Amino acid sequence: MQVKKPTILLNKERVMNNIKKMVEKAKKSKVLFRPHFKTHQSADIGEWFKELGVSAIAVSSVDMAEYFAEHGWTDITIAFAINVRQIDEINKLAEKITLNLLVDSQEAVTFLKENIKSKVNIWIKTYTDYHRTGIHWDNESLLSSIIRDIKSSENLNFVGLLTHSGHTYNSKSKLNIEDIYEDTVLKLLNIQERLFLQGFAHVKISVGDTPSCSIINDFAGVDEIRPGNFVFYDVMQLLLGSCKEEDIAIAVACPIVAKYPERKCVAIYGGAIHLSKDYLEKDDGTKYYGLVALQDGKGWGKILENTFVASVSQEHGLIITTEDILEKLEIGDLLYILPIHSCLTSNLLRKYTTLEGKEINFNTKF
Amino acid sequence: MQVKKPTILLNKERVMNNIKKMVEKAKKSKVLFRPHFKTHQSADIGEWFKELGVSAIAVSSVDMAEYFAEHGWTDITIAFAINVRQIDEINKLAEKITLNLLVDSQEAVTFLKENIKSKVNIWIKTYTDYHRTGIHWDNESLLSSIIRDIKSSENLNFVGLLTHSGHTYNSKSKLNIEDIYEDTVLKLLNIQERLFLQGFAHVKISVGDTPSCSIINDFAGVDEIRPGNFVFYDVMQLLLGSCKEEDIAIAVACPIVAKYPERKCVAIYGGAIHLSKDYLEKDDGTKYYGLVALQDGKGWGKILENTFVASVSQEHGLIITTEDILEKLEIGDLLYILPIHSCLTSNLLRKYTTLEGKEINFNTKF
Repeated sequence: MQVKKPTILLNKERVMNNIKKMVEKAKKSKVLFRPHFKTHQSADIGEWFKELGVSAIAVSSVDMAEYFAEHGWTDITIAFAINVRQIDEINKLAEKITLNLLVDSQEAVTFLKENIKSKVNIWIKTYTDYHRTGIHWDNESLLSSIIRDIKSSENLNFVGLLTHSGHTYNSKSKLNIEDIYEDTVLKLLNIQERLFLQGFAHVKISVGDTPSCSIINDFAGVDEIRPGNFVFYDVMQLLLGSCKEEDIAIAVACPIVAKYPERKCVAIYGGAIHLSKDYLEKDDGTKYYGLVALQDGKGWGKILENTFVASVSQEHGLIITTEDILEKLEIGDLLYILPIHSCLTSNLLRKYTTLEGKEINFNTKF
Repeated sequence: MQVKKPTILLNKERVMNNIKKMVEKAKKSKVLFRPHFKTHQSADIGEWFKELGVSAIAVSSVDMAEYFAEHGWTDITIAFAINVRQIDEINKLAEKITLNLLVDSQEAVTFLKENIKSKVNIWIKTYTDYHRTGIHWDNESLLSSIIRDIKSSENLNFVGLLTHSGHTYNSKSKLNIEDIYEDTVLKLLNIQERLFLQGFAHVKISVGDTPSCSIINDFAGVDEIRPGNFVFYDVMQLLLGSCKEEDIAIAVACPIVAKYPERKCVAIYGGAIHLSKDYLEKDDGTKYYGLVALQDGKGWGKILENTFVASVSQEHGLIITTEDILEKLEIGDLLYILPIHSCLTSNLLRKYTTLEGKEINFNTKF
């Protein structure tokens, strides 16, 4: 394969390994594995999950649900607050597949009661600490009144409480992630029991972030896990300890367009519209937008030391490296950028090429 | 028009005003106005420029050059270091149109001498202060040896020195931008004169950033200006003083999906994959990813005070606002997000809708 411009290379073996590990882990804990497909957004990659026995998925928009429903998925959670402006599309989906929706307010339930035309499953979005969206886990009165309201509607089937502990992304260590996971689950089990005492038989619990799902081995008490990023992992996950370097399954191949030896710098074709502007900071506060590897066989090798994407403009990036490495590089060579956040990079490039040169499709609905 | 999901609304009147002002300014200074089309990437919007007499443009990739060449543009500068892996595509373009290329090293010139098959114009990319890409303006010996080499080739026509003073984006005030602009131009005029003494008759000067081009009124000494962002402007430009609020020509209409009165917060459908992760910081260090307006007629109104996009995840954003404003908002209402950086937002959403509901096309080559 001749790479001409920024191209995501995908190591299928690593993807399959990442999926397999999570499938087995879920099996061992007897929880439903409902992978979040917003990271890869690919029907082809979806098929690899199917081969490994996965039949239920989560997505982050109505459009993404339509895309995967058209590709044969019949049990989809739209893990995002209801967008009332897409109620027609939601109704069409609910007619065809097992559709699971999230609500996080009384208003949303009222809206669904009045507007949904087929049976759907309803999760209540809760938060335990990380202030994103949802209802606070401890707000028993609000939760029970909403559950009661859901249960009063013929088309709404209440399932349980769903949370995304996004604050694991700000963790500094594995230990910290374990603490956050345990804290989250303890809180959810606590409210589950209190709701049980109010007469609500088994309220299910769904949790979801990649750091927790990668590090925790025993999901006792939980009914469903929904990690997404684990399929590819990335530099952020590597730093969190969610994965090893050899688990990172995508890299962006970028042509070198200029060399500046006096600044130990090379310019690549590959910028904000390819890699995204997600960054991490070194201990001294220096921002970086990706780590860098050289070609190795059909794929890429070890992460280069003292080498990083130091800045990105719209189309190009500047890489700071060492004299030794710089000497080996020529204009026209490819560098392999390991993305900070693989979800955003995938969404920008909207295509993958395997190491064997096969093109992998991407969501066409956006 | 019924907005169902994050949609860029475009105020055509403002776009036309922004273009007109720049056309007139360039005319007054007798410089060539070569707008950079990487901001809008739209053949339709290109036509509006044509109506106002523009015939030469800059783009930031070979693909973008192909797109605009297919839409009738015949004088295009690829304002980006040569990507040698796309030499076939470059040669095809050079056959059809007046193609202007950038070089920033001896290697690039050597490569072009050996590989280019038709006549092309060559600019040397220089930098005066902002360490992005190019050759330092003061490196007279390197510049003259490269110019000599370019002139020795039949197909390469040396034109001049091109710079992008990207450090105006880090300016704190209009005055600072003026200083940077004057410093840049003085340096370029200095090297221009020194090259003249070496026998190189009028070496042209091309400058390009939106802040300078918006604030400076007299481009004496310069041959060509290449601003891009001015067509839409954005919050960053507003803060730099490049534009007034009424000049910002695009806003992303985003449906409200949840309200959290206890946190003075609303969640919108509209996140990192719509707005980008470009941010600005308030005086206290708080990051924000966009400012917010309410609907006003067919468009949007004044920027709301004490209201901003406080965080973005892949698909949704959280807006912090005041109690007063929150009271007026309902789930399903639209909020209008003024982007921090309109180039990245446009590239993510790849479509525009005018206030009259007309769809405006976008670059199909990426």
